[in-house]
Amino acid sequence: MKVFIIGLGLIGGSLAKSLRKSAFADEILGFDKAPENLSYCIENHIIDRSVEILTGAQEADIIILATPVDGIIELMPLLLNQLQDQVVVDMGSTKRAIVELAAKHPKGKNFVAAHPMAGIENSGPAASFEQLFTDKVAIICNPEQNDRMPLNLAKLLFKSLNMKLIFMDANEHDRDLAYLSHLSHILSFSLALTAYNVEDKERNIFNLAGGGFASTVRLAGSSAAMWNPVFLQNKANMLEALELYISNLELFKMHIQNEDKLGLNQLMEKSNAIYKIINQSL
Amino acid sequence: MKVFIIGLGLIGGSLAKSLRKSAFADEILGFDKAPENLSYCIENHIIDRSVEILTGAQEADIIILATPVDGIIELMPLLLNQLQDQVVVDMGSTKRAIVELAAKHPKGKNFVAAHPMAGIENSGPAASFEQLFTDKVAIICNPEQNDRMPLNLAKLLFKSLNMKLIFMDANEHDRDLAYLSHLSHILSFSLALTAYNVEDKERNIFNLAGGGFASTVRLAGSSAAMWNPVFLQNKANMLEALELYISNLELFKMHIQNEDKLGLNQLMEKSNAIYKIINQSL
Repeated sequence: MKVFIIGLGLIGGSLAKSLRKSAFADEILGFDKAPENLSYCIENHIIDRSVEILTGAQEADIIILATPVDGIIELMPLLLNQLQDQVVVDMGSTKRAIVELAAKHPKGKNFVAAHPMAGIENSGPAASFEQLFTDKVAIICNPEQNDRMPLNLAKLLFKSLNMKLIFMDANEHDRDLAYLSHLSHILSFSLALTAYNVEDKERNIFNLAGGGFASTVRLAGSSAAMWNPVFLQNKANMLEALELYISNLELFKMHIQNEDKLGLNQLMEKSNAIYKIINQSL
Repeated sequence: MKVFIIGLGLIGGSLAKSLRKSAFADEILGFDKAPENLSYCIENHIIDRSVEILTGAQEADIIILATPVDGIIELMPLLLNQLQDQVVVDMGSTKRAIVELAAKHPKGKNFVAAHPMAGIENSGPAASFEQLFTDKVAIICNPEQNDRMPLNLAKLLFKSLNMKLIFMDANEHDRDLAYLSHLSHILSFSLALTAYNVEDKERNIFNLAGGGFASTVRLAGSSAAMWNPVFLQNKANMLEALELYISNLELFKMHIQNEDKLGLNQLMEKSNAIYKIINQSL
């Protein structure tokens, strides 16, 4: 199978490494609009060849869109316009807008809307690694929009990455992920911005930070280019989740203001109980 | 050295295990108001003997207060009232109120106000382990309030735990820790409460949560009994930190509402830059 990966960052680079190791890919073509990502991937033999987008799309059997989600919206119609019987799969963190766009295109049945639930706070091909996807969940949205062959090929792709497959409706996906992924990033970005209030070069105050701070602030290192269009494409759900999150913080603030020990305790014990449920799934 | 540990939870239990291994403790006495913690520690040979508070305080060379911080405020005067030349050290996560109380007591120079920066989301003696403190930071506040011998003994205690010692003013400690530890816990508790909005027993939705959610929600498992008095004793700083944190979240919300890509980018890139500074210290 000839695989063409568009977008050679953490996800695209890790895909190339993992697919090369598996039996799935015979040859890996790549494109990235950043010349330094392209040359890094060629020098490190992460891809076999670099090609222009439309050339690679004609040549490859499967085209993987691993760009930020605004790039997926921009490139998908161009690719579908000149598609014959090949398959296009995306790796984006939002799915509603992408699925809606594919549904409008005559070749949309060849486009599989997917979301591999894997990522770390570092970005770029230098951060990529072969095991990024292993044992993680891959979501395919609205598979009823696909022809049988493209869907089967996408399933094989994720199985060759050793991922667990889940099928979902794109609207449900975007709402659930707003709460279970996207919100966590805003929370971490905001924590770093807030913690800067006590930064003090003389005393190197961040040395005081323990493991709890480290784990809650980790996602503040995430790529702005990736997350910006995710938040905007998932606008309505993000606003709902942020509003609810802020209202929970306001409850903590009110109880602290009123020195309401009982109120604080009830909030924390409810949170403990929810965490137990969450922790069984993590 | 005969060591008496009051409060046999994660911290007290880990102290006992680590001090027994080092040369510091010849005998370890323990007290906990929860009978199940006491019996767990005796059955598992974490402590040598259980004693009542005032008996243990008379018998021991060093008394370690490892209770929640409201317990420290309650017990410290009782212990100091009947102290001869022994030393009392506390392990609390807040320091201002504790240092102020000690300063008022005639035996206050024998009380060392400390904060070992170590903890995990699980609590109780069953969660304790010998290496909890290894290579972590221990803070001693306002050492100028101490006599030389109690201070030296406390230093030896933390060195025998293989901790790095830092000295700080109690007011600075409480302000810095509001931002670098206490806030992270409220942020995690609130995330669990918010994520419950998409909980769905039929679909077991928490399976969708990835590593980012896992690390930001982890502290939602933390002990309510421990954190409640921390938030209340650090009220003014917590309100300041929460207000600033909410205002940063409101900025994200506003930019998403206005689909202001540039504004979002500036926030995330500023956060990325701060994270780089933080990450050098973590």
